[in-house]
Amino acid sequence: MITSSSNAQVKQILQLNTKARLRRELGLFTAEGVKLFREAPPELREKVYVASSFENENRALLEGISYEIVDDRVFGRMCDTQTPQGILTVLRMPSYEREDLLRTDHPLLLVLEDLQDPGNVGTILRTAEGAGVTGVILSRKCVDLFHPKTIRSTMGSIFRVPFIYEDQPEDAVNWLKASGIRTFAAHLRGNHFYSEEDYTGGSAFLIGNEAKGLSEELAESCDCLIRIPMEGQVESLNAAVAAAVLMYMAHMQRHS
Amino acid sequence: MITSSSNAQVKQILQLNTKARLRRELGLFTAEGVKLFREAPPELREKVYVASSFENENRALLEGISYEIVDDRVFGRMCDTQTPQGILTVLRMPSYEREDLLRTDHPLLLVLEDLQDPGNVGTILRTAEGAGVTGVILSRKCVDLFHPKTIRSTMGSIFRVPFIYEDQPEDAVNWLKASGIRTFAAHLRGNHFYSEEDYTGGSAFLIGNEAKGLSEELAESCDCLIRIPMEGQVESLNAAVAAAVLMYMAHMQRHS
Repeated sequence: MITSSSNAQVKQILQLNTKARLRRELGLFTAEGVKLFREAPPELREKVYVASSFENENRALLEGISYEIVDDRVFGRMCDTQTPQGILTVLRMPSYEREDLLRTDHPLLLVLEDLQDPGNVGTILRTAEGAGVTGVILSRKCVDLFHPKTIRSTMGSIFRVPFIYEDQPEDAVNWLKASGIRTFAAHLRGNHFYSEEDYTGGSAFLIGNEAKGLSEELAESCDCLIRIPMEGQVESLNAAVAAAVLMYMAHMQRHS
Repeated sequence: MITSSSNAQVKQILQLNTKARLRRELGLFTAEGVKLFREAPPELREKVYVASSFENENRALLEGISYEIVDDRVFGRMCDTQTPQGILTVLRMPSYEREDLLRTDHPLLLVLEDLQDPGNVGTILRTAEGAGVTGVILSRKCVDLFHPKTIRSTMGSIFRVPFIYEDQPEDAVNWLKASGIRTFAAHLRGNHFYSEEDYTGGSAFLIGNEAKGLSEELAESCDCLIRIPMEGQVESLNAAVAAAVLMYMAHMQRHS
């Protein structure tokens, strides 16, 4: 049983929780809680840590799993949540290629440019799975998808929605177009109402940074600038909300 | 100039930031940042605090306004944000009656049951204004609308969307029905697809707690249980996302 916060493994978990660069270098990330433990593909599982009180109450869940027991107090320090559930999994990052995003007949894709809020990105992935999105492309300047808060917000969708990073989101638009995917930029000055376009063919929605929206260059490279109408004095919608409204419009068109 | 964190006004601001009960007793709340300062109705303005460096750079904004200057370091402590913009406004709470929510021909309303995440509730208010919602009803057990994080997330919509609290959300459903409003419960076991119902008449969407969803009693009291379809293994959507998808469906129907 690990009983000290100065244990080397505890220190590495703390670093994995806070350092995106270390996560990238090692290809590892942490996922806290029962739901993420259950939904993580076993082949990605590198190590499981369990709080001692959790172990006593969850023998069935842990049967056949090798895990390390951690003193409750130390376990609390290993998690970035205020009230951890008692199980922390270290996982290898799933990894995809561009082709993985195009395996269906009419792909429905998202391109995220420089999103900064971990909760937003996680919520977008969760909603994407729900709306039947077949892949997500993130610009390299997006917040790290493997940030503990992002992972929690995905509610497990991180394990099921293929994603790739692109250094230059313009490159993504180019290969999407070359692959026959129509690119729709969500833009405050879009000249087409989002609800009047057709997303039943291969389609990609581009969503911009929370504060700045899509960059002009990226928006201009798209096939169509679409706009979600806004009443009152609202200047923009939350990025996860805008993405959700677009994705579910596509879902409705594809299922009616 | 206020130069000490032990100043009585500074202490009161800290309490207003953290104590919902004190906010309710005094009928006051705080709003940080330039956007909220600009958008707050002047008649609600009780007091304005300005960081000394902010004052130097924003003479035009502050012209004709009476305000208190605060040492930058102390000002930082008065705000619950990590990088405050330099202006903090103390405001009286806007206050509405049930009738204020029914002043339009075909009201579009939201009923929020026991929502706990301040960011979710703020985002819902912001989206509500954008989608043309005419009023929001919150159960008394919802997180306080005047929590600093909620206020920030509303992006100013708090000043423009009428809202009321109801001790018993069932009472809200009863008076909505009596007022000719059709009540739609967003429910995982809803037997009607959300996109197949008609929201052009007076309509209210009921949204449940993030973890538990709508309580059975409340769901059963509604005219119609609607469901947002979900692909993959997604068990539920984020509450703000679900609310957004419903509100924008109503918006589309009302504007096409």
